[in-house]
Amino acid sequence: MPELHLLSPRGFRAGAAYAGIRSKDLPDVALLVCESSSPAAAVFTTNKVASPSVLVGRKHVARGKLRAAVVNAGVSNACTGRQGHRNAIEMCSLTARLVGCSAEEVLPCSTGIIGQQLPMEKIAQGIAGAFEYLGDSQEHALRFADAILTTDTRRKQASAQVKIGREIVTVAGVCKGSGMIGPRMTPQATMLAYLTTDAAVTAPQLRRLLRKSTEASFNAVTIDDHTSTSDTACIIASGASAARVVSAAADVSRFKKALDEVCQSLAYQIAADGEGATKVVRIDVIRARSETDAKTIARAIANSPLVKCAMHGNDPNWGRIVSAAGMTRAAFDPDKAVLKLQGTPVFRRGEPLDFDERVVSRALASEEVRVELSCNLGKSRSTCWTCDLSRQYVTINADYHT
Amino acid sequence: MPELHLLSPRGFRAGAAYAGIRSKDLPDVALLVCESSSPAAAVFTTNKVASPSVLVGRKHVARGKLRAAVVNAGVSNACTGRQGHRNAIEMCSLTARLVGCSAEEVLPCSTGIIGQQLPMEKIAQGIAGAFEYLGDSQEHALRFADAILTTDTRRKQASAQVKIGREIVTVAGVCKGSGMIGPRMTPQATMLAYLTTDAAVTAPQLRRLLRKSTEASFNAVTIDDHTSTSDTACIIASGASAARVVSAAADVSRFKKALDEVCQSLAYQIAADGEGATKVVRIDVIRARSETDAKTIARAIANSPLVKCAMHGNDPNWGRIVSAAGMTRAAFDPDKAVLKLQGTPVFRRGEPLDFDERVVSRALASEEVRVELSCNLGKSRSTCWTCDLSRQYVTINADYHT
Repeated sequence: MPELHLLSPRGFRAGAAYAGIRSKDLPDVALLVCESSSPAAAVFTTNKVASPSVLVGRKHVARGKLRAAVVNAGVSNACTGRQGHRNAIEMCSLTARLVGCSAEEVLPCSTGIIGQQLPMEKIAQGIAGAFEYLGDSQEHALRFADAILTTDTRRKQASAQVKIGREIVTVAGVCKGSGMIGPRMTPQATMLAYLTTDAAVTAPQLRRLLRKSTEASFNAVTIDDHTSTSDTACIIASGASAARVVSAAADVSRFKKALDEVCQSLAYQIAADGEGATKVVRIDVIRARSETDAKTIARAIANSPLVKCAMHGNDPNWGRIVSAAGMTRAAFDPDKAVLKLQGTPVFRRGEPLDFDERVVSRALASEEVRVELSCNLGKSRSTCWTCDLSRQYVTINADYHT
Repeated sequence: MPELHLLSPRGFRAGAAYAGIRSKDLPDVALLVCESSSPAAAVFTTNKVASPSVLVGRKHVARGKLRAAVVNAGVSNACTGRQGHRNAIEMCSLTARLVGCSAEEVLPCSTGIIGQQLPMEKIAQGIAGAFEYLGDSQEHALRFADAILTTDTRRKQASAQVKIGREIVTVAGVCKGSGMIGPRMTPQATMLAYLTTDAAVTAPQLRRLLRKSTEASFNAVTIDDHTSTSDTACIIASGASAARVVSAAADVSRFKKALDEVCQSLAYQIAADGEGATKVVRIDVIRARSETDAKTIARAIANSPLVKCAMHGNDPNWGRIVSAAGMTRAAFDPDKAVLKLQGTPVFRRGEPLDFDERVVSRALASEEVRVELSCNLGKSRSTCWTCDLSRQYVTINADYHT
């Protein structure tokens, strides 16, 4: 079977061009175009300092239909006032004119430095170049995936297939995100995710499913807990497969599973490529009193720089983990909790356990570290992905701008 | 006027001994003893994983009277179960026997690694040694201040004097804190602060004043936003001055001013000595809709690793600051906000401002950086102190334990 990619779902083409908006030798303006105006849904940042591109995109996708997405990297268009708002609309108009749709059927996204106006001449050239290059090959998919990267060190893509009736439908996606990652997206991050499917799904159904999948994927990743001004995840369902409309409960469940798989894989890839990251840290909080409690605790552990530095040093300093759990408003009782590092119990019901620190330290020297904290207060659980905190993180972020 | 110190307020003696609990060549067990059982108040960590020492201390100080405080560095006694609880009580009993008071009149504190039992033989030797060395000279005060340090690189002390009637009373304090600093102390944080005064103040009054002073000082410092298992700030009022009891409104106001001055100086010193810090970052959020909003925004900015790295790199990357303000639940509207870096406006009412990045970058290369964000939504304000995030922070915390 050939490798699946963003354009494996039927009905999509993508293109990318090098417009010189950022210094990297990568394409920086890209288009994703669906063969016809199709059901779509998106979730956006909850930051009150949302980019004008987000404000425009939110309005456009609210109509439930999209024909295309246009995106640039290098300049985020956040904090740019009225000019920024006009520029976001102009990106849509330029795209619409080429594609042959209305501007309202285009979702605009921008990622990069905050507070600079988009270089509209370059953007226009980029859009024209990307349109000229449109295609549905794997190469086109990869170029689109590359064009949206900023401090990312590698492209991120995922896909899944599922049977709806007798037909196989494909769900695929690409995303970017490495720093300023603490998405809290609701149907209204700078992580960007573009999801395609050739399943036939209505916009309301897409909205409901994307919201749920986002909670357990993109919204469960944190690099620096800094909710971006531009976070956006969108899905377009071309319906270009021959499969029946996804509406029966069993079909929805199957489709949801594929969507979850794609979103979670993309989220994992963001954690793995966090700025300066040398490893992924997966935090499972289990047996919490409520799901909110489980999430709150998992996120507090994931965001503690002390925990993240310990993970970088392969240091089984479990006291930092237990104390991070205790500092939130969530129900937590150290006398009931059990903590495991890479499967080894290190703390149980208020008491430190004897364990071989060197053995656990060696186990922590891994590409994936698993922290499991059982609260023993209920039946709820939550998983959160983050990465370690390295000197390289500081280097990247102390010198990004000037 | 001779330099003031922790033991300048009359009625106090202190001692410290080298018990070998930690590797540093500094005293690590210390006693602060008041000449008689005196009104006292304390605030403690709100972490649900509180050290047994905190649980014991909270109970003891609830009686409103203290005669002594005993403290060790190197082992925090947190997450140590029943044995840890017995050890905290034993520290009090050992101290009480020597001082000649009840164990309930002793406040125990421990700071250091989490999850190890206190080495009680060394602790007992340390307490005996510290008691033998008790005195009220500046040297004694400095030894006490040194004995409580852990990853701190320098001692922290402050003092103020104020007239109550015709008499001068002194408020003095020492504290420690460099990492695991995100205190949220209430009358029930690992920063430790010991405050002495020879003013005559009742315990209820001390409680009320300490709570208020803590909000605008210790609770307004964040290094890593990690609320420790052991944070404690306590004040003992010996009443050994000849001044009248502090109860008239004007006297309370004067005394409060001195206490605020001491607490804020100590808090500032904690920020300046944050792990790996090269500078203090002072964040003033002004014209917020409510004090809670102002605090929430100030803390979100102070805790953003992106902002802290930018400050380390002298990078006027103001988009990170504005977006940190926008990601909280607090009321914030970028179209109304004005941001100044070292006094230079960089963002105003939704629009980026033209400013010379090199000039502002040079201004950020300072021991103290001031960030002032005006929300223009109300009349409330809040100040928060933090430090920059350096590679040295990662080095310190990736290798602390193993």
